[in-house]
Amino acid sequence: MAPSFGFDVIARDAGARRGRLTLAHGVVETPAFMPVGTRAAIKGATFDEVDALAPDIILANTYHLHVRPGDDLIARAGGLHAFMGWAKPVLTDSGGYQVFSLAGRRTLSEDGVVFQSHLDGRRLSLTAESAADIQARLGSDVAMMFDECPSWPATHDDTRAAMARTLRWAARGRARFEALSEGLVPDVLRSTPGQAQFGIIQGGTFKDLRDESVAGTVAVGFEAYAIGGLSVGEPTEVLYDVAGHTAAQLPEDRPRYLMGAGMPDDLVEAVARGIDLFDCVLPTRNARNGQLFTRRGPISIKNARYAEDLGPIDPACTCPTCRRHSRAYLRHLFVAGEITAATLNTLHNLHFYLDTMRGIRKAIEFGTFEAFRQAFLETYSRRQPL
Amino acid sequence: MAPSFGFDVIARDAGARRGRLTLAHGVVETPAFMPVGTRAAIKGATFDEVDALAPDIILANTYHLHVRPGDDLIARAGGLHAFMGWAKPVLTDSGGYQVFSLAGRRTLSEDGVVFQSHLDGRRLSLTAESAADIQARLGSDVAMMFDECPSWPATHDDTRAAMARTLRWAARGRARFEALSEGLVPDVLRSTPGQAQFGIIQGGTFKDLRDESVAGTVAVGFEAYAIGGLSVGEPTEVLYDVAGHTAAQLPEDRPRYLMGAGMPDDLVEAVARGIDLFDCVLPTRNARNGQLFTRRGPISIKNARYAEDLGPIDPACTCPTCRRHSRAYLRHLFVAGEITAATLNTLHNLHFYLDTMRGIRKAIEFGTFEAFRQAFLETYSRRQPL
Repeated sequence: MAPSFGFDVIARDAGARRGRLTLAHGVVETPAFMPVGTRAAIKGATFDEVDALAPDIILANTYHLHVRPGDDLIARAGGLHAFMGWAKPVLTDSGGYQVFSLAGRRTLSEDGVVFQSHLDGRRLSLTAESAADIQARLGSDVAMMFDECPSWPATHDDTRAAMARTLRWAARGRARFEALSEGLVPDVLRSTPGQAQFGIIQGGTFKDLRDESVAGTVAVGFEAYAIGGLSVGEPTEVLYDVAGHTAAQLPEDRPRYLMGAGMPDDLVEAVARGIDLFDCVLPTRNARNGQLFTRRGPISIKNARYAEDLGPIDPACTCPTCRRHSRAYLRHLFVAGEITAATLNTLHNLHFYLDTMRGIRKAIEFGTFEAFRQAFLETYSRRQPL
Repeated sequence: MAPSFGFDVIARDAGARRGRLTLAHGVVETPAFMPVGTRAAIKGATFDEVDALAPDIILANTYHLHVRPGDDLIARAGGLHAFMGWAKPVLTDSGGYQVFSLAGRRTLSEDGVVFQSHLDGRRLSLTAESAADIQARLGSDVAMMFDECPSWPATHDDTRAAMARTLRWAARGRARFEALSEGLVPDVLRSTPGQAQFGIIQGGTFKDLRDESVAGTVAVGFEAYAIGGLSVGEPTEVLYDVAGHTAAQLPEDRPRYLMGAGMPDDLVEAVARGIDLFDCVLPTRNARNGQLFTRRGPISIKNARYAEDLGPIDPACTCPTCRRHSRAYLRHLFVAGEITAATLNTLHNLHFYLDTMRGIRKAIEFGTFEAFRQAFLETYSRRQPL
């Protein structure tokens, strides 16, 4: 196990866990939401603004940073933390999800994936080994293993084949990670000595394949385990069911990360099923499209009904946007196409997600998570509130 | 004179003045630069970020706000300050400059200008009176009179005709402003009781016309005087010569505002000629195009030479961007098209302008302005520094 890695479950409330995850650059209080900073930047929020929102950890993207500006350049700059000016923990995904979404521009083999850069058509490749090398150069606190991400829906046969290959990549990726940790890969400049590596469970919506994936991945052995291949279009009930089933098979003493989820109510439901870590582009991407989250549900700020609404987005919100600006002003900025619309909306939505996680953590500590969950789900509606 | 208006010259150094301008929403230390917030927002910087940069006054645009969201809506929201969440002084330009730039979509008459909205083609008009009414509804601290802005170059005859009409509009605009101040225009909801109104001197690059414009505008009588019709394409020496000539004719006890200027060295040169107030889109607009101001001159952050430059934009700079980020990171953000590139570049450039003004004010107080000016001009080059 990476020497700087630690995880303690400090409180439980039914299936929900309140944990403390120690990484090379600091402690992450769980359950935690990780804002997405794909290209070493949170879209719409400067790191001074991110500091004030106070996430314990953010996410960056291996594929995008490999393509531009390059992990070699970032390593020469001292690693991702020094390069982007962020001192707290960072998790990098493996790039698999992005590479597999390049349909028609990639070729899959047992070795890995050969693909064309979305920027300039350059021929690049990602393998279990190179994904580990790139993340070593980036110097994230958490590197993700390289996995195959089949699209949804997929047959049992196809899902099984992808899951089995992912298991073989797990073994190769972990071996490379260990070689990197032991300094046996001299040509890779490793930016964060205490890096941890998380395994990824695949198996689609098939519980037998999920079980097989859990057994094989845990047998390889990683600092923690992520559930991949969900939040890709399947119905919400299936997401909850498969995530819950898979989480229950994973080791009690390791964090569980549900990749790519989700809507605010998804977070609450997944925590109830034992999930500790989340990432999702929804709060930032939807902010840029004018969708703002409130305790009653999302609202679309471009709606004409807000043109003269002098109240804040959410009366209970303490974010920088709600402290200063009305719905009427935010609608004006959005309709006018002002850059600050993206920023103010992003700050609000990220605050909403991070504040929801603070509420979840407190409720688990107090043993009141089930009441929190019921109150949240009764108030929150995915349909536009009146 | 508007009851809340005041101006004291607290120090002089040759032609330069160090003043204190009192407006309805606060005090402006002059010489001052006013960041441009055309549509009730500084492009690329939230008001929390603007607060930290600490300008005493910002500018907003009458034409743009009249077209969208409408001055009536803003008046119902309590005026521009309440609408945008900014408690310090605001100056609104009269809309003349924007209307006259709508070549082919506007018709000029003695009454004013009829034009088509750039957004939806609606037929709108601006006159000396309606510009005053709109600015009364907006509730800015300083309303500008409505003037005719001829394009450059223009003949003496054309410039004289425009200047003469502007003088007639000055009288009409001031009469309307006084009627508004005395509550004699019952259908206009006036948002800031202590609003002041500045006159505008025209006359192009012809000193005889400038003299005539000064005499006529001062005879009408305004709280202060602006020099319009410069920074429109004329050579720098002409800008300095005409601005200096005009400033010298204006009343000693009133602030002088050089509209639309300029480059950093323009500010220093204009202060030397007795100018007190400036506004310009350069720091914000050029930031979004990747041009960053330094003490040695502007640099283009997209240049490949900065790809691995781990130093800040300007080693002497104390702005939020230079405190946290390298040129290499800023280049990455700009090349990748990240939103935060616009924000971080804007914060730096606005800080550079505001900090230059702080340096100017301190130098005048200490009686060292001429040394400051020489040092600034020796260091600063408009060409890209090595």
